[in-house]
Amino acid sequence: MSLDETSQKPHDRLAEWLADDMAAVNSLIRLRMASEHAPRIPEVTAHLVEAGGKRLRPMLTLAAARLCGYDGAHHISLAATVEFIHTATLLHDDVVDESERRRGRPTANLLWDNKSSVLVGDYLFARSFQLMVETGSLRVLDILANASATIAEGEVLQLTAAQDLRTNEDVYRQIVRGKTAALFSAATEAGGVIAGASDAEVAALFTYGDALGIAFQIVDDLLDYGGTDAAIGKNTGDDFRERKVTLPVIKAVAKADAEERAFWVRVIEKGQQAEGDLAHARSLMARHAAMEAARDEALAWAETARRALVALPDHPLRQMLDDLAGYVVARIA
Amino acid sequence: MSLDETSQKPHDRLAEWLADDMAAVNSLIRLRMASEHAPRIPEVTAHLVEAGGKRLRPMLTLAAARLCGYDGAHHISLAATVEFIHTATLLHDDVVDESERRRGRPTANLLWDNKSSVLVGDYLFARSFQLMVETGSLRVLDILANASATIAEGEVLQLTAAQDLRTNEDVYRQIVRGKTAALFSAATEAGGVIAGASDAEVAALFTYGDALGIAFQIVDDLLDYGGTDAAIGKNTGDDFRERKVTLPVIKAVAKADAEERAFWVRVIEKGQQAEGDLAHARSLMARHAAMEAARDEALAWAETARRALVALPDHPLRQMLDDLAGYVVARIA
Repeated sequence: MSLDETSQKPHDRLAEWLADDMAAVNSLIRLRMASEHAPRIPEVTAHLVEAGGKRLRPMLTLAAARLCGYDGAHHISLAATVEFIHTATLLHDDVVDESERRRGRPTANLLWDNKSSVLVGDYLFARSFQLMVETGSLRVLDILANASATIAEGEVLQLTAAQDLRTNEDVYRQIVRGKTAALFSAATEAGGVIAGASDAEVAALFTYGDALGIAFQIVDDLLDYGGTDAAIGKNTGDDFRERKVTLPVIKAVAKADAEERAFWVRVIEKGQQAEGDLAHARSLMARHAAMEAARDEALAWAETARRALVALPDHPLRQMLDDLAGYVVARIA
Repeated sequence: MSLDETSQKPHDRLAEWLADDMAAVNSLIRLRMASEHAPRIPEVTAHLVEAGGKRLRPMLTLAAARLCGYDGAHHISLAATVEFIHTATLLHDDVVDESERRRGRPTANLLWDNKSSVLVGDYLFARSFQLMVETGSLRVLDILANASATIAEGEVLQLTAAQDLRTNEDVYRQIVRGKTAALFSAATEAGGVIAGASDAEVAALFTYGDALGIAFQIVDDLLDYGGTDAAIGKNTGDDFRERKVTLPVIKAVAKADAEERAFWVRVIEKGQQAEGDLAHARSLMARHAAMEAARDEALAWAETARRALVALPDHPLRQMLDDLAGYVVARIA
């Protein structure tokens, strides 16, 4: 989920353009993640919130609102809301995945315990809920409530779809929306709504966020089979070891002959993995051009994101969002 | 958390009076706990939702709304919201407490796994959020957002206050509000708000729910040291074994001499518990009249609840709520 950090990258240009807003968002986050009574809460949240995530999601909200001419103050609460939901999701994800590292640091469930991660995640959800009520917009609340349901449903779906080779591309897309795209699209859509954008603009912002998120996650899933450790900040092959049925696997399985299918059943469904199996999985993907097919889908989603932007006002931020969509898929193009 | 089930109990009279509303709430719960895509979700929720909980919290919402003359339809969504929040909390609690039984049945974390309990809990929170947005009332959303934060904060506080003899009655009250009273008071307050009750009536409904919840939880904590297994539906001594610092412990520790203090430090802070320690803890509570003092507090909270009701319209439901407050403490009076 990390983007490169050299300057002039689209993400950095967004951060520069939105610097004042982001400073306000960061202050609000620090203020609201505190708890008068339970010191464990700021300990855990500080560990995660200060860990140097890129704040991509709140930036999408700010960019959408500013791009649509917003000059009020609610976009700050809304952006903090989106980051809180994201952080809460990460805390619960790390419990579910039994992860030990996140953004290069030990996870909260490792440093404290699973209990703290579950409950502090719940606290951040509640805090995000309070923040969004402060925007006073029922339409924003509706968007974020629906996104929350899609996220939670996608997480459960991922749990049950893992280790199941019947998982198809439809189910994969629902999982991807839950993991990534639902919060991206809620971030951009709600930013437009708070700015009073037209229905066509709001729809375009939704499509941009949705398509960007799907492209983003497909790239992530591709890199898990092909990237280098340094580039993706986690070990290659994690998804394989966790028996997740991601797009490259689905595409390779769809073209598998009987012998190949027996391999996938053994490593994914039965979880009997041995030395060399990851390399063999990669070779099967190469044989059936599964990586190329997945890459083409990511590129098509990025193109969908860029095309949606034409419905939005001409603005420097629009160009940065356009560049961002290109950048997300640049690592695999 | 269970009340006796013989007929003519206040709870049963409420259930009888509100039977049509409760049938609508139960239908809505079944409808909304489903998931088109992830069959694990209804499996887990059905296990819990159909397990025969008393639906006390949604009944409080319905009673508050009807008592204030409401004849719209939003109280049904609101009551379902409250039950979903409660159910989500139970799912996460059982993960945190590593519980194996709930309402006499194996817990979801035991039947499936902790992952499912965490994620399905998140799903129910999101569903509750969608339902409350449907009421269209920002004030209701504000009440429930604040209650959610108090609940989550109280849970974290309980985690860190357990095993810590410095926990005082103020902290205990915050924990109790998080565990029980915040959802009771949100249930009654929001019921009044949805009915368009006056500020004085809404305040009275808040006070009733808050005081009822505190009384309820103190009784629960007392029975954990003194009740019979049959009466409370769980094993006596659970709190002692989990080293929770509940009101009877706080009151006994406050009057402890050096030798007694050493005992409490050993069993609660160090967790070195041996055969006979629970009985010894009980004898120390008896020596300092800790149970009596805690009982007096529960009775005082029940009285606060009853007194609050005088600000509300004269109505058969008001009498049932009055009787309910008396009934909650009757087991220890």
